[in-house]
Amino acid sequence: MTEPLSPAVTICRDLIRCPSVTPNEGGALTVLEKLLSANGFTVSRVFFREEGTPDVENLFATIGSGSPHLVFAGHTDVVPAGDEEAWSAPPFSGEIVDGTLYGRGAVDMKGGIASFAAAALEFVRNRGADFGGTISFLITGDEEGPAINGTVKLLDWAQKAGHRFDAAIVGEPTNPQSLGDAIKIGRRGSLSGQLTVTGIQGHVAYPHLAKNPISLLLRLTSALDTLQLDAGNERFEPSNLEIVTIDVGNPAFNVIPRKAEARFNIRFNDEWTLESLKAKIVETLDAAADGAPYELAFRPDASQSFLTRDERLIDALSVSIEAKTGRRPALSTGGGTSDARFIKNYCPVVEFGLVGQTMHQVDERVDIRDLDALAAIYGDFLERYFPQG
Amino acid sequence: MTEPLSPAVTICRDLIRCPSVTPNEGGALTVLEKLLSANGFTVSRVFFREEGTPDVENLFATIGSGSPHLVFAGHTDVVPAGDEEAWSAPPFSGEIVDGTLYGRGAVDMKGGIASFAAAALEFVRNRGADFGGTISFLITGDEEGPAINGTVKLLDWAQKAGHRFDAAIVGEPTNPQSLGDAIKIGRRGSLSGQLTVTGIQGHVAYPHLAKNPISLLLRLTSALDTLQLDAGNERFEPSNLEIVTIDVGNPAFNVIPRKAEARFNIRFNDEWTLESLKAKIVETLDAAADGAPYELAFRPDASQSFLTRDERLIDALSVSIEAKTGRRPALSTGGGTSDARFIKNYCPVVEFGLVGQTMHQVDERVDIRDLDALAAIYGDFLERYFPQG
Repeated sequence: MTEPLSPAVTICRDLIRCPSVTPNEGGALTVLEKLLSANGFTVSRVFFREEGTPDVENLFATIGSGSPHLVFAGHTDVVPAGDEEAWSAPPFSGEIVDGTLYGRGAVDMKGGIASFAAAALEFVRNRGADFGGTISFLITGDEEGPAINGTVKLLDWAQKAGHRFDAAIVGEPTNPQSLGDAIKIGRRGSLSGQLTVTGIQGHVAYPHLAKNPISLLLRLTSALDTLQLDAGNERFEPSNLEIVTIDVGNPAFNVIPRKAEARFNIRFNDEWTLESLKAKIVETLDAAADGAPYELAFRPDASQSFLTRDERLIDALSVSIEAKTGRRPALSTGGGTSDARFIKNYCPVVEFGLVGQTMHQVDERVDIRDLDALAAIYGDFLERYFPQG
Repeated sequence: MTEPLSPAVTICRDLIRCPSVTPNEGGALTVLEKLLSANGFTVSRVFFREEGTPDVENLFATIGSGSPHLVFAGHTDVVPAGDEEAWSAPPFSGEIVDGTLYGRGAVDMKGGIASFAAAALEFVRNRGADFGGTISFLITGDEEGPAINGTVKLLDWAQKAGHRFDAAIVGEPTNPQSLGDAIKIGRRGSLSGQLTVTGIQGHVAYPHLAKNPISLLLRLTSALDTLQLDAGNERFEPSNLEIVTIDVGNPAFNVIPRKAEARFNIRFNDEWTLESLKAKIVETLDAAADGAPYELAFRPDASQSFLTRDERLIDALSVSIEAKTGRRPALSTGGGTSDARFIKNYCPVVEFGLVGQTMHQVDERVDIRDLDALAAIYGDFLERYFPQG
């Protein structure tokens, strides 16, 4: 009486049933390896380890030859399930209730991988391996973790193995509300920093013998908090700075503390380079400090903003989305960072996947019609990207 | 070959040798009890206990009869020695090196008690118990602790026992540099408060979905930090507000926190009552908040400022100090709170003792000449305060 499950839904369910909580492989890459190698892909399992970080398994699979070379990038690792008792269905059971598939990773992003795999397998089945180009999967198990033994190293490994990519699609959930809302064609940069002010500890009754570091820290953080970096532009939202914490840790009401610290993060657009932004922050703080000493340390994990300018790639994907959903996707650069920030150093990259609303939450889930619709979009895109001879 | 030690130095050394780290009696009150009762004082040991606070022993000793009734108030408990290895002499050994007596409590305030005891015993020896008034000792073991089972309850106990005080001297170290610098004739009030701002947690990449509580807390604390309460007056220093801590405790650079807290303390003069000051703080915060919600909680341990206006008491002590040191003491209301804030509800109170520089430090110590000079000042004062019939 039950309808058979579509390929995209079946693959997604198989992947959800693997408890691949980062950094554990959990069987998810093995599911992909079997599926892809059985359908003509050359599959490599690539293992990276580094002192002080979790060991990570990754997968690279490729079919076809020559240009254009399209790579689909994604991750099979997922964030922890949280309170499993709070889930409507067990988070690694892959249960389908009323047309909705429940499970950790359903939209972030086992569903995206499943839809692309279903589309690619059908495309290769129809067109044969000699379809006029190359399709690869670049799948990591370290996107939700420290991102050290994953995409960065796998890209380097692929380049050393001779692979030259012409375009990349990242299958992260890019749609805020409905499938077809948005393609990500770039991301803002991210810059974090820490401010430290050191004063002289003392008793509150004798402030002339002490120097309260909080006064200067208030001036510095207020200057940052009220700083208008830019008004945004047609490509990007305005850059935004958040003071994420201020900490003194003084338990005593009658003691002036010695040290006060604050941390901030900036998400910035292409009106800034990392260098011009750092200079602006230093200029702002110096003006607020008015000669008083403070320490500023920028974190090393900063990233530049980027914007993909490959019109052929963006147009083909947009047309496919409109063809299958009836909606013209917005070209977005909003939201957080993704592995696209690493891939953009190798080839133009766009991001399109499922609806992100339930990602990282209890009851992460996907409407199974969305999985099939996304597979149809990816399939249509493959036809456009690799036009028939 | 060694000169015999003076009474003040001997008593001080005997007290230092009792390890009366708050709230332990350590034998110190027993030293006093034996000394005073052997010299005609009626001595009561008074013990207070209260659920959730340390049990504390106290001492009340009295001699003479009728008015005027002068009470000397002090404490034998001391703060911990800290790093004992760092001391030049063991902190409870009472060693004298080159005319300096080392030990925890040397100036805060076993030395003050010893000097007053030496002076009072000599005064009573010369004048007899019928000297035209009453002298009492009100000694607590809970000044450096929570101050719950000490002076407050002992004052109440003494009142219920029928004692009516006309004047009080507190023997705390009041001199910043040299004996004779300053008498304390009042103290500023103290008011503490806690500010809490609650926002909405979220990811820094999606600030429109979150609400950072730090922005409002910065406006509130900056308004307090730059507030000029008053310019002081001839009796008091300007009132002063210190932000003593700000805490968010957010370890993540990519998360906008939910809650931010700050604490402040105000030392305020007689331009303000507790009520007018609280109203000013609320008015200042409301203006800075501009309608945004925040929580303000004043701490219950606030105290009003006070000023002693007993010219006879102040003048007699000032004249005695000038007679013995050649220096006219400043009449100060600066510095931190002391048990005088409780005594002022019973009678006029002044504070005068040793030089405070080494109090609470490693190598707390007193020049033995200062002990004898302070005993001479107290003795001269007793003669002036109880003039010969």
